[in-house]
Amino acid sequence: MPVLLDTARAPALDALLASVNTQGLDLRIESGKAGDVRSLDLAEAAATSAASAGVPMPQIRGIGTLASAGPEEITFLSNPRYQAQLAGTRAAAVIVTPDVAQAMAANAEMPAALRVVCAHPYLLYARLAQWFDAARRPELPASVHALAVVAADAVIEDDVRIGPHCVVEAGARISRGTTLGPGCVIGAGSTVGPDCMLHARVTLYDNVHIGARAIVHSGAVLGADGFGFAPDPTLGKGAWGKIAQLGGVRVGDDVEIGANTTIDRGALEDTVIGDGVKLDNQIMIAHNVRIGAHTAIAACVGIAGSTVIGSRCTIAGAAMLSGHLTLADDVHVSGGTAVTSSITQPGRYTGVYPYAEHGQWQRNAAVIQQLSQLRRRLRALEKD
Amino acid sequence: MPVLLDTARAPALDALLASVNTQGLDLRIESGKAGDVRSLDLAEAAATSAASAGVPMPQIRGIGTLASAGPEEITFLSNPRYQAQLAGTRAAAVIVTPDVAQAMAANAEMPAALRVVCAHPYLLYARLAQWFDAARRPELPASVHALAVVAADAVIEDDVRIGPHCVVEAGARISRGTTLGPGCVIGAGSTVGPDCMLHARVTLYDNVHIGARAIVHSGAVLGADGFGFAPDPTLGKGAWGKIAQLGGVRVGDDVEIGANTTIDRGALEDTVIGDGVKLDNQIMIAHNVRIGAHTAIAACVGIAGSTVIGSRCTIAGAAMLSGHLTLADDVHVSGGTAVTSSITQPGRYTGVYPYAEHGQWQRNAAVIQQLSQLRRRLRALEKD
Amino acid sequence: MPVLLDTARAPALDALLASVNTQGLDLRIESGKAGDVRSLDLAEAAATSAASAGVPMPQIRGIGTLASAGPEEITFLSNPRYQAQLAGTRAAAVIVTPDVAQAMAANAEMPAALRVVCAHPYLLYARLAQWFDAARRPELPASVHALAVVAADAVIEDDVRIGPHCVVEAGARISRGTTLGPGCVIGAGSTVGPDCMLHARVTLYDNVHIGARAIVHSGAVLGADGFGFAPDPTLGKGAWGKIAQLGGVRVGDDVEIGANTTIDRGALEDTVIGDGVKLDNQIMIAHNVRIGAHTAIAACVGIAGSTVIGSRCTIAGAAMLSGHLTLADDVHVSGGTAVTSSITQPGRYTGVYPYAEHGQWQRNAAVIQQLSQLRRRLRALEKD
Repeated sequence: MPVLLDTARAPALDALLASVNTQGLDLRIESGKAGDVRSLDLAEAAATSAASAGVPMPQIRGIGTLASAGPEEITFLSNPRYQAQLAGTRAAAVIVTPDVAQAMAANAEMPAALRVVCAHPYLLYARLAQWFDAARRPELPASVHALAVVAADAVIEDDVRIGPHCVVEAGARISRGTTLGPGCVIGAGSTVGPDCMLHARVTLYDNVHIGARAIVHSGAVLGADGFGFAPDPTLGKGAWGKIAQLGGVRVGDDVEIGANTTIDRGALEDTVIGDGVKLDNQIMIAHNVRIGAHTAIAACVGIAGSTVIGSRCTIAGAAMLSGHLTLADDVHVSGGTAVTSSITQPGRYTGVYPYAEHGQWQRNAAVIQQLSQLRRRLRALEKD
Repeated sequence: MPVLLDTARAPALDALLASVNTQGLDLRIESGKAGDVRSLDLAEAAATSAASAGVPMPQIRGIGTLASAGPEEITFLSNPRYQAQLAGTRAAAVIVTPDVAQAMAANAEMPAALRVVCAHPYLLYARLAQWFDAARRPELPASVHALAVVAADAVIEDDVRIGPHCVVEAGARISRGTTLGPGCVIGAGSTVGPDCMLHARVTLYDNVHIGARAIVHSGAVLGADGFGFAPDPTLGKGAWGKIAQLGGVRVGDDVEIGANTTIDRGALEDTVIGDGVKLDNQIMIAHNVRIGAHTAIAACVGIAGSTVIGSRCTIAGAAMLSGHLTLADDVHVSGGTAVTSSITQPGRYTGVYPYAEHGQWQRNAAVIQQLSQLRRRLRALEKD
Repeated sequence: MPVLLDTARAPALDALLASVNTQGLDLRIESGKAGDVRSLDLAEAAATSAASAGVPMPQIRGIGTLASAGPEEITFLSNPRYQAQLAGTRAAAVIVTPDVAQAMAANAEMPAALRVVCAHPYLLYARLAQWFDAARRPELPASVHALAVVAADAVIEDDVRIGPHCVVEAGARISRGTTLGPGCVIGAGSTVGPDCMLHARVTLYDNVHIGARAIVHSGAVLGADGFGFAPDPTLGKGAWGKIAQLGGVRVGDDVEIGANTTIDRGALEDTVIGDGVKLDNQIMIAHNVRIGAHTAIAACVGIAGSTVIGSRCTIAGAAMLSGHLTLADDVHVSGGTAVTSSITQPGRYTGVYPYAEHGQWQRNAAVIQQLSQLRRRLRALEKD
C-alpha cells in the first residue's frame, strides 16, 4: 500500500494545495450542500486563513482512489466510469470538476468530503502525487560513494549524487542536480544533463547524451550497438561481417525511459529521442530511429532501424514498427499492431487478429488460408 | 552438458529415492522380465537393505534424457511421444508409469535398466532434478560480502548470504535462509522473505515486498514506476505531466520471476503477484495488475495496467493483455494472442494470424482489407 | 554525431585502404572524368606511392552517409535507392560499384570526390567502420580492477581486462584477449573464449560457455533457469513444482548477443547457439533451443523451448516461434510472424495481420469471427 506521511509532516489541505504547482489550474475548495455552500478560492489562500473562510481544513497524509482513500487522504474523480464510487468514499477531500461539484452539493447522499473543484482533476492529481512522492523521500546531500569509480577527467558538477558501484568513464559529465542510483555505468564521453534521476543499474555506453530532467529506470541500456551486418563470404558460407556502429544516442529534455528498455546507437549518425518523449518498459529502439517531441510509447514496443516517428504520437503496447518508415505527427497506433508501411496522415491505426474461444478461432483461421480463393469464387458467382 | 556428481558423492538408487521428496508418489523399483520381476517397495527401503531384496543398486550420478543418459544416470518417460526411445536407453534406471513398466517387463527387447515405477514420472523427475541441483552446489555459510553496502538500519537476519556489490538500503529486511547474488539492489523499506534466491543483478525499488521461497532471476526489476502521465498543456503542446507512482509491489510465497522481467509499482495501490505464480523471462507486468495464485505466464508476455488475472491461468508466450481487463480463474491464453476484452469463462482462447509461405500470405492478406465488402457482396447474392 | 579522428591521426585514403582488411575485395581508387580517369590499383599501393599515380590522397577522419559526410570523410553507395544523393555529397571519397563509377565519370554534374571502386561497397564500408571504431578506442592494458572480485581458483589468462565491480566465480576461465566491462558476473565453472568483448553488466550463470570473438551487450543474461514446472498437487490445487534446470548454455565462435537478450540454460542438455549467430536486443531463447551457424535474429524475437533452427536462417523482429519445432536451413521468417509448426523447406514465411485505419480495421475484423460461416454460405450459393 502507498506510504502515508507521518501525521506530524502532513499539511492541511489548503497549505498542500498552495504548495503544489497549480499553473493552469483554477482551484477552489468547497464544502456544504446546496443553499449552504462555502467556498475558498485558492488564489487567495495565501492571504486568507482557511479557517477564516469558515471551512475547517483537514490534514492530508496521502492520496488514494475513491474506493481506498481513508479519512486522512485526498482522492479524485477523473474518469466518469468511477462516478458511482463517489457516494461511498471515506476521503477527507475529493477533486472534481465544477459539474460534479454542483451535483454533489445538490445530492444529500453525497459524503461530507471537501470538494476541490478544478477543471482538470487528473492533472491536479498528477501534481499532488509528485508532491507526496517528493515529500516521502529524504533529500540526499551531494556525494560520490566510496565504492563508485569515477575517471579522473570526468566532470561531476555540484549537487550530484553518485551511488555505490557506479562507474563514470573518461570524459563523461554529470550535471548538477542529478542522481545516479547504485550500479550505473556512464560510458566515455557521455553526458547526463541537470536534474536527472537514473535509477539503479542504468547503462550508458560511450557517446550517449541525455538532456535535462530525465528519469531513466533500472536495466535500461542506451548506446549498445545497432544490429548491422554485411554478408561476408570470406568468413564462411552465409557468414556476417560486423558493421561497427559509429553514431551515438541523443536524448532531449524531460524524457522518461522505462526499465529494461534499450536504445541502440546509430550506425553513422545518432539515434534521436525528442523532448518530452515518454518510453515505457522493455521497449526496443533500433539504430538511427528518430522520435518526435512528446510522443508516448507503451511497453514491449519494438521500432526497427531508421524509422522516423512524428511528434505527439502514441504507440500502444506491443506494437511493432518496421524499419525505414515515416510516421506523421499525431499518429496513434493501437496495441499489438504491426506497422509495415509509412503513415502520412494523423489518426488511429490498428491491425490485431481478433481473439476467440480456441475452437471458434480454429474454424475461422482455417479459412484465412483460402481467402483469395474465396474471393475468386465469389466473383465467379457474381458473373453468373 | 549437465554436470555429473563425482562418483564418491553419487548415491545408490534406493538411497537417492529415499532422500528425495516422495510425498504423493508411490514408488517401487523393479528389475527383471515378466515371470522373474523383482520389486522393491521404497516405503520399506529404510528398513530393508536394497541388496537384501535381490536388486543390486547402481550409483546414480545424474539425470538425462532417454537418448542421452549414460549408464550412471537415471532417466524418465513421461511424454508418450518419446516411448520409441525406451528400447535404446543406456540409463541405469528409468522412471515409468505402471503400464509402461509392465510393457517393459513383457518385452524381451527392452533394456536391463531398473524400472522406477511411479504414477507421476514427470513429478518424480522434477524432484530428482531439484535434488541433483542442490547436490552440485556448495552450501555457503552466511555472510555479507565486504564490497556489499548495507544500510545501518537494514535488518539482515541469520543465515543470509549477501554477495559482492549488493546494496541494501535503509529500512530493508532480508529474512533468514535467503541469498542475494552479486549486484542485487534492495530499495529502502523493501523486504525479501525467507529462503529466497535472488540471482545476480536483481533490482527491487523501495516498497517492494517478496514472500517466502521466491526465485528471482538476473536483470529482473520490481517496482519501477508505472507508466502514468496526464496531459499538461502548461508544459507545451501535447506535453505529458508525470503521475508519480505511490504504490508498491507485493509478491506472494513460492513465486519464480524470470530474467529481465519487469513488474511495475502501483499508481495508488500495489501491484500484486499471488502465491505460487510462475513468471518466465522478459515479461512485463504494468502497474496495478493483480495475478491470482498458481497462474503461470510464459516469456515475452505483456500485461497492461490494472488488469486482474484469475488463479490457475496459463498465458503462453508473447501473448498480450490490454489494460483494465478481468480474466476468470482457469483461463488459458494461447501464444501470441492479443486479449482485448475481459474473459469471464474458463477455457482456452486464441487469436493468431496463421502463417504461410510469403506469396500465399500476400495473396490472402490482400483480401483481409476487403472482408466487410465481401460479406456485403455475399449478402447481395443471397438476396438474388 | 559520430566522432571524427583527430587530424593528426587521420590516415591518407590509400594508407587507410591498405590497412583495412580487403580480403575478397578488389579495390581501385579513381579520379577524374571520362577521357581523363586516373586509377590507382590498391594491390600495388604498397609498392607505388599514391602521389606518383597522379592522384592526390585526402586524409580521412571518418565515415558518413552520402548526405552527411563532410570533406574529410569517406562515404559509400550500396543501396540503389540513395543513388540520387550521389550528386550532392561533399565527401572526400565515395565507395561505389564499377557500374556506378563509370556513370559518375561520364556525368559532368557528379562531384569531384575520389571513387573507391569495389564490387561490394557495403562490405568495404563494414570493414572501414570496424577500422574507425578500433582507431577511436584507446588500447587498454591487461588488468583486473581492484574492485573486481575474482575467485582464487578462477583462471584469468594473459591480456585480459576485468572492469570494476565484476565477479568471476570459482573455476571460471577468461581467455586471452578478452575484456569484461564493468559489473559483469561470470558464474562458477563458466568460460569465456579468447578475444571476446562483454560490455557492462553481462551476466553468465554457472556452466555457460562462450567461444572466441563473442560480443555480448549490456544486460544480457545467459544461463538463467529454463521455464519448467510439473503440476504438483501436494503443494496445493493447481500448484507447480519446479524442475531444476541441470543443463548449461554453449555459444559458438563469432557470436554477437544484443542488450537485455536472455538465453536460458537447458533442462537436461545444453541450449546451443551455433558459430557466427547474430542476436539482436531483447531476444528470448528458451531452454534446449539449438540455433544453426550464421543464423541472424532481429530484436524482440521469442523462441520457445526445444525448438531447433537451421543454419543461415533470418528471423525478423518480433517474430515468435513455438516450442518443439524444427526449422530447416535457409528459412526466412518475416517480422511479427508467429511460427506454430515446423518448416521443412527453405523460403520466406509470413503471418501478419495487415494494419489499417482503425475504423476500416474494425469493419473488416468483425468479419473474421464469421469466416467459416461465410465459407459455408458461399458453398451453399455455389450448389444452387
